[in-house]
Amino acid sequence: MDHNISKHISGNFNQELENVRNHVLAMGGLVEQQLNSALDAVNDSNAELAKKVEIGDYKVNAMEVSIDEECTRIIAKRQPAASDLRLVVAIAKTIADLERIGDEARRIAKVALESTAKDQQGLLGNIDNMGRHVSQMLHDVLDAFARMDAEAAFQVHKEDAKVDREYEALTRQIMTYMMEDPRSIPKVMDLVWSVRSLERIGDRCQNIAEYVIYFVKGKDIRHIAQDDIERDIIGN
Amino acid sequence: MDHNISKHISGNFNQELENVRNHVLAMGGLVEQQLNSALDAVNDSNAELAKKVEIGDYKVNAMEVSIDEECTRIIAKRQPAASDLRLVVAIAKTIADLERIGDEARRIAKVALESTAKDQQGLLGNIDNMGRHVSQMLHDVLDAFARMDAEAAFQVHKEDAKVDREYEALTRQIMTYMMEDPRSIPKVMDLVWSVRSLERIGDRCQNIAEYVIYFVKGKDIRHIAQDDIERDIIGN
Repeated sequence: MDHNISKHISGNFNQELENVRNHVLAMGGLVEQQLNSALDAVNDSNAELAKKVEIGDYKVNAMEVSIDEECTRIIAKRQPAASDLRLVVAIAKTIADLERIGDEARRIAKVALESTAKDQQGLLGNIDNMGRHVSQMLHDVLDAFARMDAEAAFQVHKEDAKVDREYEALTRQIMTYMMEDPRSIPKVMDLVWSVRSLERIGDRCQNIAEYVIYFVKGKDIRHIAQDDIERDIIGN
Repeated sequence: MDHNISKHISGNFNQELENVRNHVLAMGGLVEQQLNSALDAVNDSNAELAKKVEIGDYKVNAMEVSIDEECTRIIAKRQPAASDLRLVVAIAKTIADLERIGDEARRIAKVALESTAKDQQGLLGNIDNMGRHVSQMLHDVLDAFARMDAEAAFQVHKEDAKVDREYEALTRQIMTYMMEDPRSIPKVMDLVWSVRSLERIGDRCQNIAEYVIYFVKGKDIRHIAQDDIERDIIGN
């Protein structure tokens, strides 16, 4: 980042880019905290913590709207080009995904409020493992964003395949559970949505990884096979 | 739209905005077709049509990347301000949602390939009804986008609450089905994902409605209660 920022003649523009970047990191930190609190709330059946997540989501939403306005203002006022423009675009997209990760965290927390799935301890433990894995992905991709490190972002990008496999395995486990005890279906259904939410969070971390790579390498890697990304883009 | 476009002194810039707008409408038309084909494929257990949807999704993805590049190019070259900038931002966000609606259509079509849920005719009929409702929402929001009609967009925005209620009812019906015939769970689970996909498509249509309102009214209405939108923004 610094080599990029230092080239600006206008110190004010530097400061604006630095500010918006810090705001994204603050928003990311809050979303990460929301996800971890949601997982804790489900794991400990902690309704109070779940309510805190619900309230915290308003703050996430407000941060997105405010950073979005900041980005539009920068484009209008500074008319950024090349890598500055790529940075603003990457930021605008990143915060959209962060906001939706926040929504998923809120949905997961809701399970702690409504579900009577406490007795499914085996399932809950496995969901928690998947949750911590996804939370680590979020942590790592925010770290890659902070350092604008394409290599680290690509590691997160690859990690999503593992989350998808965990998702498949958990879904199978949940179905077996339902078949063995059909009366549990309404309770277990809440867990199905949580697992799906976690899988989606993994996808969104992968999206953010793509924006980091887009900023650093100047190439849009969405819809490109991972082997090709590794060879043609990260390898450069 | 025209009153907005006509004010530009540069005829080229007019042409560029008009082009990118037409490309969004073409992308929207394709996504709408993908969704309808996916619903037909599930309804008629038509594997060939489902495969066509899978292939068509590459085209949707390619269109998104290309329109995204067009938007970045316009920002860099024309340095749009005020309503022009809002238009480009609204377009960039709209195509991201359209691309994800395309993904959901592909997921729905996959059910026709993999599922052996043909025998669940009652459920399939209800899912089809919900699907056609969502498809109409997509059609209407694209229409609102084409005419940049905030009023029409707000109608779509309100429609999503109905889709959410259909989603709740269908989920309850599916759970009853599972409880009555636990052996059907793996088959019926595919339908659960389709219903969820449809609900998400409704959410994304609502997002696009918000971008149209943002462009026309210059106000970001995400995270604002519907009554307040009606009174403070559409009512103006």
